[in-house]
Amino acid sequence: MIEKGTPIEAAQGKLGILLVGLGAVSTTFVAGVELIKRGLAKPIGSLTQLGHIRLGKRTDKKNPLVKDFVPITKLEDLVFGAWDIFPDNAYEAATKAGVLKKSDLDAVKEPLQQLKPFAGAFDQNFVKKLEGKHVKKGTRRELADQVIQDIENFKKQSGAKRIVVIWCGSTEVFIQPGPAHASLKAFEAALDKDDKTISPSMIYAYAALKLGIPYANGAPNLTTDTPALLELAQETKAPVSGKDFKTGQTLLKTILAPGFKARYLGLSGWFSANILGNRDGEVLDDPDSFKTKEESKLGVLDTILQPELYPDLYGNFYHKVRIHYYPPRGDNKEGWDNIDLIGWCGYDMQLKIDFLCRDSILAAPLVLDLVLFMDLAKRAGMKGIQEWLSFYYKSPMTAAGLYPEHNLFIQEMKLKNTLRYLMGEEQITHLGLDYYE
Amino acid sequence: MIEKGTPIEAAQGKLGILLVGLGAVSTTFVAGVELIKRGLAKPIGSLTQLGHIRLGKRTDKKNPLVKDFVPITKLEDLVFGAWDIFPDNAYEAATKAGVLKKSDLDAVKEPLQQLKPFAGAFDQNFVKKLEGKHVKKGTRRELADQVIQDIENFKKQSGAKRIVVIWCGSTEVFIQPGPAHASLKAFEAALDKDDKTISPSMIYAYAALKLGIPYANGAPNLTTDTPALLELAQETKAPVSGKDFKTGQTLLKTILAPGFKARYLGLSGWFSANILGNRDGEVLDDPDSFKTKEESKLGVLDTILQPELYPDLYGNFYHKVRIHYYPPRGDNKEGWDNIDLIGWCGYDMQLKIDFLCRDSILAAPLVLDLVLFMDLAKRAGMKGIQEWLSFYYKSPMTAAGLYPEHNLFIQEMKLKNTLRYLMGEEQITHLGLDYYE
Amino acid sequence: MIEKGTPIEAAQGKLGILLVGLGAVSTTFVAGVELIKRGLAKPIGSLTQLGHIRLGKRTDKKNPLVKDFVPITKLEDLVFGAWDIFPDNAYEAATKAGVLKKSDLDAVKEPLQQLKPFAGAFDQNFVKKLEGKHVKKGTRRELADQVIQDIENFKKQSGAKRIVVIWCGSTEVFIQPGPAHASLKAFEAALDKDDKTISPSMIYAYAALKLGIPYANGAPNLTTDTPALLELAQETKAPVSGKDFKTGQTLLKTILAPGFKARYLGLSGWFSANILGNRDGEVLDDPDSFKTKEESKLGVLDTILQPELYPDLYGNFYHKVRIHYYPPRGDNKEGWDNIDLIGWCGYDMQLKIDFLCRDSILAAPLVLDLVLFMDLAKRAGMKGIQEWLSFYYKSPMTAAGLYPEHNLFIQEMKLKNTLRYLMGEEQITHLGLDYYE
Amino acid sequence: MIEKGTPIEAAQGKLGILLVGLGAVSTTFVAGVELIKRGLAKPIGSLTQLGHIRLGKRTDKKNPLVKDFVPITKLEDLVFGAWDIFPDNAYEAATKAGVLKKSDLDAVKEPLQQLKPFAGAFDQNFVKKLEGKHVKKGTRRELADQVIQDIENFKKQSGAKRIVVIWCGSTEVFIQPGPAHASLKAFEAALDKDDKTISPSMIYAYAALKLGIPYANGAPNLTTDTPALLELAQETKAPVSGKDFKTGQTLLKTILAPGFKARYLGLSGWFSANILGNRDGEVLDDPDSFKTKEESKLGVLDTILQPELYPDLYGNFYHKVRIHYYPPRGDNKEGWDNIDLIGWCGYDMQLKIDFLCRDSILAAPLVLDLVLFMDLAKRAGMKGIQEWLSFYYKSPMTAAGLYPEHNLFIQEMKLKNTLRYLMGEEQITHLGLDYYE
Repeated sequence: MIEKGTPIEAAQGKLGILLVGLGAVSTTFVAGVELIKRGLAKPIGSLTQLGHIRLGKRTDKKNPLVKDFVPITKLEDLVFGAWDIFPDNAYEAATKAGVLKKSDLDAVKEPLQQLKPFAGAFDQNFVKKLEGKHVKKGTRRELADQVIQDIENFKKQSGAKRIVVIWCGSTEVFIQPGPAHASLKAFEAALDKDDKTISPSMIYAYAALKLGIPYANGAPNLTTDTPALLELAQETKAPVSGKDFKTGQTLLKTILAPGFKARYLGLSGWFSANILGNRDGEVLDDPDSFKTKEESKLGVLDTILQPELYPDLYGNFYHKVRIHYYPPRGDNKEGWDNIDLIGWCGYDMQLKIDFLCRDSILAAPLVLDLVLFMDLAKRAGMKGIQEWLSFYYKSPMTAAGLYPEHNLFIQEMKLKNTLRYLMGEEQITHLGLDYYE
Repeated sequence: MIEKGTPIEAAQGKLGILLVGLGAVSTTFVAGVELIKRGLAKPIGSLTQLGHIRLGKRTDKKNPLVKDFVPITKLEDLVFGAWDIFPDNAYEAATKAGVLKKSDLDAVKEPLQQLKPFAGAFDQNFVKKLEGKHVKKGTRRELADQVIQDIENFKKQSGAKRIVVIWCGSTEVFIQPGPAHASLKAFEAALDKDDKTISPSMIYAYAALKLGIPYANGAPNLTTDTPALLELAQETKAPVSGKDFKTGQTLLKTILAPGFKARYLGLSGWFSANILGNRDGEVLDDPDSFKTKEESKLGVLDTILQPELYPDLYGNFYHKVRIHYYPPRGDNKEGWDNIDLIGWCGYDMQLKIDFLCRDSILAAPLVLDLVLFMDLAKRAGMKGIQEWLSFYYKSPMTAAGLYPEHNLFIQEMKLKNTLRYLMGEEQITHLGLDYYE
Repeated sequence: MIEKGTPIEAAQGKLGILLVGLGAVSTTFVAGVELIKRGLAKPIGSLTQLGHIRLGKRTDKKNPLVKDFVPITKLEDLVFGAWDIFPDNAYEAATKAGVLKKSDLDAVKEPLQQLKPFAGAFDQNFVKKLEGKHVKKGTRRELADQVIQDIENFKKQSGAKRIVVIWCGSTEVFIQPGPAHASLKAFEAALDKDDKTISPSMIYAYAALKLGIPYANGAPNLTTDTPALLELAQETKAPVSGKDFKTGQTLLKTILAPGFKARYLGLSGWFSANILGNRDGEVLDDPDSFKTKEESKLGVLDTILQPELYPDLYGNFYHKVRIHYYPPRGDNKEGWDNIDLIGWCGYDMQLKIDFLCRDSILAAPLVLDLVLFMDLAKRAGMKGIQEWLSFYYKSPMTAAGLYPEHNLFIQEMKLKNTLRYLMGEEQITHLGLDYYE
Repeated sequence: MIEKGTPIEAAQGKLGILLVGLGAVSTTFVAGVELIKRGLAKPIGSLTQLGHIRLGKRTDKKNPLVKDFVPITKLEDLVFGAWDIFPDNAYEAATKAGVLKKSDLDAVKEPLQQLKPFAGAFDQNFVKKLEGKHVKKGTRRELADQVIQDIENFKKQSGAKRIVVIWCGSTEVFIQPGPAHASLKAFEAALDKDDKTISPSMIYAYAALKLGIPYANGAPNLTTDTPALLELAQETKAPVSGKDFKTGQTLLKTILAPGFKARYLGLSGWFSANILGNRDGEVLDDPDSFKTKEESKLGVLDTILQPELYPDLYGNFYHKVRIHYYPPRGDNKEGWDNIDLIGWCGYDMQLKIDFLCRDSILAAPLVLDLVLFMDLAKRAGMKGIQEWLSFYYKSPMTAAGLYPEHNLFIQEMKLKNTLRYLMGEEQITHLGLDYYE
């Protein structure tokens, strides 16, 4: 366990952000950062940029900005690179994604046009609905070597002192850990043998970790959640975190379910439908990709609600999640939830929620916070799984044997108390009896 | 400040619950407890009856029931009394309220029929839409003496060793603290002079506190939130708590708003409409009573969202709450919320929520938890304002100069950490770094 | 074409209603009629029982009840029989269906208990999710003979003078008309050969029509919508109508879509999700059964909106319908619709609809109206397809080469003008210029 | 009564449209027409521009465009003028209204900038929330003379051969007809005496009708719905129509209510809330203006549902309509409806509707259709109330003693059958028995 008030290396020089996938989320993130740097937009949704953190008692009124409290990299020092299976530059890709308005994109056209992706490491067996046109060739070992070469080239050209790699690509089909993922040795042998159970996302992660670079996983893909890659992360002292950016309907679930639980209101059912029309929606129209997503979405409620402790309340509820591809909606994902609640003496109540959200608008600030915190973790000497970043993920990674924490408010407290701890401050318990005689 | 692990007097003998108002909430509470005692229903919604509390680390797996952890009174030891301005017994009143099914009420008809209310202390200037038929006569001083006499009679007849008084009546019209509320001395002189600025709820609170009895306030009425009655509470070592049971739409607000805040999503507006058809709805059709309620409902968001710290996010949002009397809905209150959110780079999103809830079903378990915890506080030697019970209230009372905590999850942590503290256990911070090397 | 003011045989003696399927819809229908006969409920939803019909000019104020205007059978003269693949009597089946309250069912327990179904003609290839326990044995020809025998036995035992058969059973899997359905001769040969393309519903229809008995089809099954059975209907002078009771979401669609069309508002998409937990929901969880239903549900909008006439408005909208089995909802089907509208100059608008309906409560009065009108048609000498009953169906049957009318308001006018025509009254055009100089 | 196939004067030369009020609706209408003339937008929502009309039998397939069937004026021949109490030209006013996108307005900037309003005839007693800055001075008689002079000047400058005046301004406070409205003579005397019961809208109507010019009323104001002005319309052979453009929530009500009625589903309640943030919302925040609107909105259901004929279904439902000013919504009005339905045997169902609409986008095509049809009526020799235009109004005007028709589908049939009648075609009854033997 890291020590309280541990010394943290300063954030000097440029930080290179390498995005796997240059689609709606990535381009919304990059364009947003460029707009914010020019004072043309606010970093809404970003804890690192806007958040305050309370220190001491309520009456002390000490609430510094997070970015003044912990030594994170400044936006001015960020530089961007990417891989994608389409050759479009970030301006073209952002235009096709249709998330940001033309006038916003035009204001940062130049840097977006300069961001051109490296060819992607791709295998259509893992994303059936897409056909890559701008892809690397070779065995898995060769692909890994090419990705390592891309990273080193990017570092040289951009002048970045430090790098973070983050997956912002599509959801791969569902797979279980197999023999190739059981140890680093087995994994490297499998790379050499071009083993089909190694997915593209694992190749990127392997390349990053091999270089000691933090790797964050914004999709529900298995990727680093295997003994093989966790072993590598320990060895090269690289932080990893994941899985699956928590946005939209699942974000709402991890807000609402803790509320029902806090009040001991029972559940008989929770039905969730999503309609969306972006590339993500198209990919998830494939039942295998949907299965990966479904696992990620369904687990949330059980861990929050603890049916084993509360069988009368949560022992028998029906939970169903469906995603429907609906082109008229574009990137403006819509989530409709029907929640059947049980109250005092078993009387039922219903809650209907319609969330007219924007997928990439919710995800972009998570990308920003994650890359900054992953870099901080690296500089603080924290390696392997970063559970304190659970706040950002639908399926948080944890140490073996530990249940993940899905409750957004416990996640938030975990994150903020970790920052206090790193900086040598007291943790907050909200007891508050000391204000009274 | 009370000491950690302070000794608490045992919960021996009967606990008398005196309900001010024997309407939908009170009868749903009493009928529910009687059904639960007979094994015919579950105490869903009650933290004291169903809640577990985690002690130690996640891996310790120590999660006792709250009721096994702290010495609260057993349901078998509760006895009930009430005041009301209508003479109906609890069975008749529950039937009119129409909350519980006839078959449920019939299963506990006998105890309900035996619960007959004392005549109420009433003044129509404070609740314009109701006309009392079963009311006490006399000056305010005489009414207070009669209420004290009622309490003593009830104690004798029921054999209760301890008493808690809880307001479950209608919302009084909005009033500001005046000269009569400035000190205990002024208040008692005002009672003698039958001063019109002393509301009926203050008479009940005065009577209870004079006898050293805890007083909980389920409506937004001013009542004990004055220097006069807080002085009395300190003097007679009586706990007080309030104001306004947190149910329905406001409960949802204190679940959702902390979620938006945690994620630094901005707000441009929040519109809330309620439709309900019970006596409460009728009373709130009077603009003066609604004003009291509106103050209670509107304050919630500002305190949670801290616009002074986050002017870009919450400095300028439009918040409107409306309550509409709509008889077809009966006690099944429906709350419709439209929330206009702002995300990354200022892009807007919308959230629509329709809560088909049941007012009294949500309130009844709060009554149960509050009377049990207020009695616990008394036995633990805690007097005056019980901020740790903020969890149950729309407008939590706090020490002078302290902002109230509205975030449901901070309130929950405050409550649970208070219980841990009282029992000498360590508080929980959710840091969790100790699980990792 | 039948003549205006054609003579209609009087409705003398009992009318026997034979229900194919004794599930939620059938038992709600029968129990309702029994409650209504006893004055314990109102026939809400039934045009034949509650509807008035305007005759002449608005200023004439002639609005007789439909049931006083046309010679339909009285409720007192209805007698009921049924087939089902479960042996439960109507009281048991209604209790399991959980639509009507126990107190309502108990008030008519006796007649419900006496209604015991004949064994069903069943083939699991047509309804994969159900397993029949109370089924007839034999080839298709033998099954048809047994059904004919059942009808004659029922007629004898019940004393019915006339019979109507109506399908209230589950949805069969989707099939296309094949060689066996091409002519009556082919069909009868196929019966003899036990041809697998003859579905159970066709066997019931064949039996009824063979006897000259009207047959109404409450499911989207192909059944009588084939040359073979229409030929038989002509030959034996039997009326037929169908298909698929128009309830819930499709009912709303045929109300709303004519409204958008009337105002020339365009559509970019219409997404419909249904959640339901009854036997129907379970059956429709089978993709093949759902396909039959989907065809029935999707066709509605195209016919109403006429995209060929209005390509700018309706030439390119995305229509998706999904049904999700969700047990907590029981028979209380819930339909959620998202409608994306296009207005003046192409500006978009959205409409969200949540219909908390009750499937069988909406269907039961349609059963009543249909059996009474089918019997009326028979007595009036109308044979074959009864297009004027389109009002009741999701997929109205029409003469070959004629598009079906889905607009609920045109259907209503068609029905009412047909009644006026049959009785020799003038039709109504709503011109109304004659009120002005 | 006008004759079938009556001769209609040709639509030669320019048609001048004089708009009373140059706010959101008027500018959206004018800008839209200019965009459509340039091929930059489609006239979505306009029956005259997009509608087809069926002639003869379904199998005849005769469906000409309405604009090819009846001799209406071409868009190219429209010229625009206006009055307003603010001096902004149409480009400035449209920019403030915020309905159309900047890029759309810029494409027709020139004609919009040239449209500058005449000063308005205004009296703040009738619209309390607005303060006019660009207003005429003088007694009511003098104001009327000035308006007549404006019309004549406009005719001269624009070269218009014919004129239609249409009210697109704010809602005036509720008033009852008084002595000044009882006859034309009384009205003219009241003008001379500057009688305060003559509202500004009456002055515009008087001026138009005096010149024999058609007057259409887009607000619920009393205006021409008085003996005085109807007498004048007869005298000068001027058509009048009104009141209150049917858009948004009321449009939906007149679509849905006929559907419930057609199916004989009962109602226990209908609750409607509107949130909007435009000038209209601000005006309706004044209770007196809201009362005029409320009358217009509430009457709709009673006339459609005929509670006198259907006491069991509609004799006792609770109808409540509320409008809430909510600035974040701007012109994008949102209507939320909760409908409590009653079905078979009295079982209840609920329908929730959220309409995210755009007020002016829905109103603009109605302005277009109305001015074209009012001009057609004038040329066809139809004078006084035009009931066949009920389709466009929330409170249709009718001959004395006649109930208004609110059902959108009857209104549509009335309109289309009137067009058929004017052109000498057969009316359509939807009988359809002739397709069957």
